Amino acid sequence: MSLQIIPVKISRDIQPGDDLVEILFKTKAGRGLQDGDILVFTQKIISKQEGRKVDLSKIRPTLFAAGIASAYKKDPRIVQLILDETKRIVRMKNGIIISQTRHGLVCANAGIDESNMEKGFATLLPKDADSSAQKLQKRIKAKTGKNVVVLISDTFGRPFREGQTDVAIGVSGMYPIIDYEGKQDNFKRVLRVTAIAIADEICSATELVRGKTLDTPIAIVRNYKFEKKNGGLQDLLRAKSLDLFR
Amino acid sequence: MSLQIIPVKISRDIQPGDDLVEILFKTKAGRGLQDGDILVFTQKIISKQEGRKVDLSKIRPTLFAAGIASAYKKDPRIVQLILDETKRIVRMKNGIIISQTRHGLVCANAGIDESNMEKGFATLLPKDADSSAQKLQKRIKAKTGKNVVVLISDTFGRPFREGQTDVAIGVSGMYPIIDYEGKQDNFKRVLRVTAIAIADEICSATELVRGKTLDTPIAIVRNYKFEKKNGGLQDLLRAKSLDLFR
Repeated sequence: MSLQIIPVKISRDIQPGDDLVEILFKTKAGRGLQDGDILVFTQKIISKQEGRKVDLSKIRPTLFAAGIASAYKKDPRIVQLILDETKRIVRMKNGIIISQTRHGLVCANAGIDESNMEKGFATLLPKDADSSAQKLQKRIKAKTGKNVVVLISDTFGRPFREGQTDVAIGVSGMYPIIDYEGKQDNFKRVLRVTAIAIADEICSATELVRGKTLDTPIAIVRNYKFEKKNGGLQDLLRAKSLDLFR
Repeated sequence: MSLQIIPVKISRDIQPGDDLVEILFKTKAGRGLQDGDILVFTQKIISKQEGRKVDLSKIRPTLFAAGIASAYKKDPRIVQLILDETKRIVRMKNGIIISQTRHGLVCANAGIDESNMEKGFATLLPKDADSSAQKLQKRIKAKTGKNVVVLISDTFGRPFREGQTDVAIGVSGMYPIIDYEGKQDNFKRVLRVTAIAIADEICSATELVRGKTLDTPIAIVRNYKFEKKNGGLQDLLRAKSLDLFR
């Protein structure tokens, strides 16, 4: 059966405390939600709804942040925000800061983002995107009786390859990886590929219907069969000790 | 409009010289091909069709390959094949060899794969997957008059995150990256996200309908609007000098 990726257009700018489930159900695609659908929300819409918006005029950069900002030609207040969200700097070079965030994500600028925001403001990543996803999933279940999966998606760069792709930063209702370990292929041989990050692939698939402006912050993936086993972001993060590139 | 990802089931094992276009048009999905469709073929089916299958009994490992094989508990003949396909070893640790292939791809084991093959055989990556994609695209155009895009997809691991995802190793008929550089968001600000690797996201999306056995080696992506500008694998590869992780 073919997989469907359905964009959900939402023209209004999301404000802190907005009811995303109500907003979703004002759309035709939202009202057509089916059991087993996977709903993918962008990080940006979740961060805005959760009030993870920072007024840059209130940030006082430390000397350390100001030093980096000057060398990197960045706004010192943004560098301060990045440092505040960073557990460990992974690489800092060519004007790029790659850090490991408090959540364990390895990404540029600790996920701090000024795009699609009024001037003078930036968004931080959700505090706990698994929990954001769980809340949405439960409210949808309570409102409609439908069992859906909720993923929170963000756009990250990666080593070796040009261009960014979407990955999951929050997961509720599915295990984000399919493990083929020990499974046999058509020739009864153990497979080389042992685990597929399906949650990341699903997020990437929804980026294709989204574009980079604000008007499609949700997408629905229909007809994807997944294992009903709980998992979360931590299942997608490689331990530093097992990572050949940290 | 919603995006559709259509699996193309092919039950036979592909042999060198098989006509993949004829085989595609024996399926219902293949006969239903439309202008603007994106066809994604797995690396495995292309390698098999192009005879990139190696009889391991004919490989004589060098002392160097035998040494690595013994330390890494690998088949010395496979290590020899990896070295033969490698331009540069990027990391070698924890039993894993990450190398840059002759094509410039950075991946485990130089893309050498023993899965879905008879015992005693392995496949190498296609010599030039852009050219494989171009040939398929042209033959489809000649046969049906339809303009389609062809991508060749392979499953690679990545730093920082668990699980593998599909990426493009060959491209014909589209530019594999959307560049938003200088474009403005809904607040008339320049976007943080400057380039999306849409070809990789498309390959990842098709992995979701495929699974890891042989019977769905092709998938069709329908309703994706892309820019008609030519590009290829090299557009997806970051130069070593710009890569923070090499």
